[in-house]
Amino acid sequence: MGNEIVETTFYVRYAETDQMGIVHHSHYVVWMEEGRSEYMRRNGLDYVAIEQSGLALAVTEVNVRYLAPAHYNERVTVRTRIDSLRSRALTFGYEIINADTRQCLVVGSVKLMLIDRQGQVVSMPDSFQALLKNAGG
Amino acid sequence: MGNEIVETTFYVRYAETDQMGIVHHSHYVVWMEEGRSEYMRRNGLDYVAIEQSGLALAVTEVNVRYLAPAHYNERVTVRTRIDSLRSRALTFGYEIINADTRQCLVVGSVKLMLIDRQGQVVSMPDSFQALLKNAGG
Amino acid sequence: MGNEIVETTFYVRYAETDQMGIVHHSHYVVWMEEGRSEYMRRNGLDYVAIEQSGLALAVTEVNVRYLAPAHYNERVTVRTRIDSLRSRALTFGYEIINADTRQCLVVGSVKLMLIDRQGQVVSMPDSFQALLKNAGG
Amino acid sequence: MGNEIVETTFYVRYAETDQMGIVHHSHYVVWMEEGRSEYMRRNGLDYVAIEQSGLALAVTEVNVRYLAPAHYNERVTVRTRIDSLRSRALTFGYEIINADTRQCLVVGSVKLMLIDRQGQVVSMPDSFQALLKNAGG
Repeated sequence: MGNEIVETTFYVRYAETDQMGIVHHSHYVVWMEEGRSEYMRRNGLDYVAIEQSGLALAVTEVNVRYLAPAHYNERVTVRTRIDSLRSRALTFGYEIINADTRQCLVVGSVKLMLIDRQGQVVSMPDSFQALLKNAGG
Repeated sequence: MGNEIVETTFYVRYAETDQMGIVHHSHYVVWMEEGRSEYMRRNGLDYVAIEQSGLALAVTEVNVRYLAPAHYNERVTVRTRIDSLRSRALTFGYEIINADTRQCLVVGSVKLMLIDRQGQVVSMPDSFQALLKNAGG
Repeated sequence: MGNEIVETTFYVRYAETDQMGIVHHSHYVVWMEEGRSEYMRRNGLDYVAIEQSGLALAVTEVNVRYLAPAHYNERVTVRTRIDSLRSRALTFGYEIINADTRQCLVVGSVKLMLIDRQGQVVSMPDSFQALLKNAGG
Repeated sequence: MGNEIVETTFYVRYAETDQMGIVHHSHYVVWMEEGRSEYMRRNGLDYVAIEQSGLALAVTEVNVRYLAPAHYNERVTVRTRIDSLRSRALTFGYEIINADTRQCLVVGSVKLMLIDRQGQVVSMPDSFQALLKNAGG
């Protein structure tokens, strides 16, 4: 595991703004999730198949610090990395930046656990860990 | 079936506004769905049990007309009725009003079909139709 | 005006699904708005500047028909065109398709009016109409 | 300031679920905001007027721990308190519980700063602090 950072870039949607004229703070949580999706896609981790096998990555903790606001029509980049991987918990770290100015807007982390259909925490399978470790190189 | 109207009232959430300073138009679609939930709760239709039995009401059509905007912190009332019930389709009609002034903000309709786990349309069970018909009186 | 179709493609986000295992029907309304944003960007219409000048495009009508569901991690393409442009109303037409299979998932239309800071409907400026007409060619 | 806890209770909306069959983790952030709105309404703090005067409470930090999931059609209660009030920062603390079983689902905190129209941090006015302190007893 290590220092691989996966980037995904998209436009801010109008629906993501609020009456303060900036992106509502809840949407960065969704963007961080999309950062995880991109991280898994790039590293060959098929999350759809994981869910079909009866497992799921459940979010157990979210921490976000807001440094500067994003606005409608700006392009933002979510930079996603793995901060920690244990047998029972996986933590992603994030920077969300303005894609054009590279200004840092938000930093955050999200901790997840692998659960089965009964909601019980299970150890991450070796294959799963290996993939993530390879990802990190 | 007929003219029963079920009302549900709640405050506009800040997150539902956009940078125009009004509620984003997509949220009225969510409010209409919450109107359906309340309609079913009041009439003893247990939608959670319906889904557990392997069926689901899938939305096939949404039509909304926006007459006046709702704003943060206002109380809105969703007025929900059944406009049409056939063996294979159910259409709800809606008025969303300001709960205090009674001004009409939005009118709309949502058409649903009952589908099974394979996504195939199935006829609505008699019990289901009966409940809805009773509801309408 | 005419038949220009602007496409924008993105992945379905996990947060856009609901417990039916498909994209919640309200999110297509947001996607159609993002289609409008892309349409304006491609045609040099600066919507941010329009709002800064005190005008806004307010949604007055939304109509959506759902033909097939989108799922998490699929790539969808929003195909946006102008269906009608009058001095006081602008209607966009949409097809949302699976970007890989090209299956049509949703068709819809959204009607907008240009309003000023008091919420009064105003005629679309010539420059605005010209740009859109050029777009349609 | 102190230990006043303001409660607000509502049904989980279908749109708030995701394909894991539970409420998507981003929505608790919206619910906490609605808890703040209720806290201010109960204590006579008119946030709409605050924004009209050119000020706004901007979120600078969000921390959430997820203990158990909420599901569609359940009633949840957001319990909101003020954890800390300084001249330049206000922190709300939250518990979100199942309204019927009183099981704790989520705990969290949100830190806000008062900013002016230029986005500069300003000290909270005495009246504002007094109201909040009265609220807390």
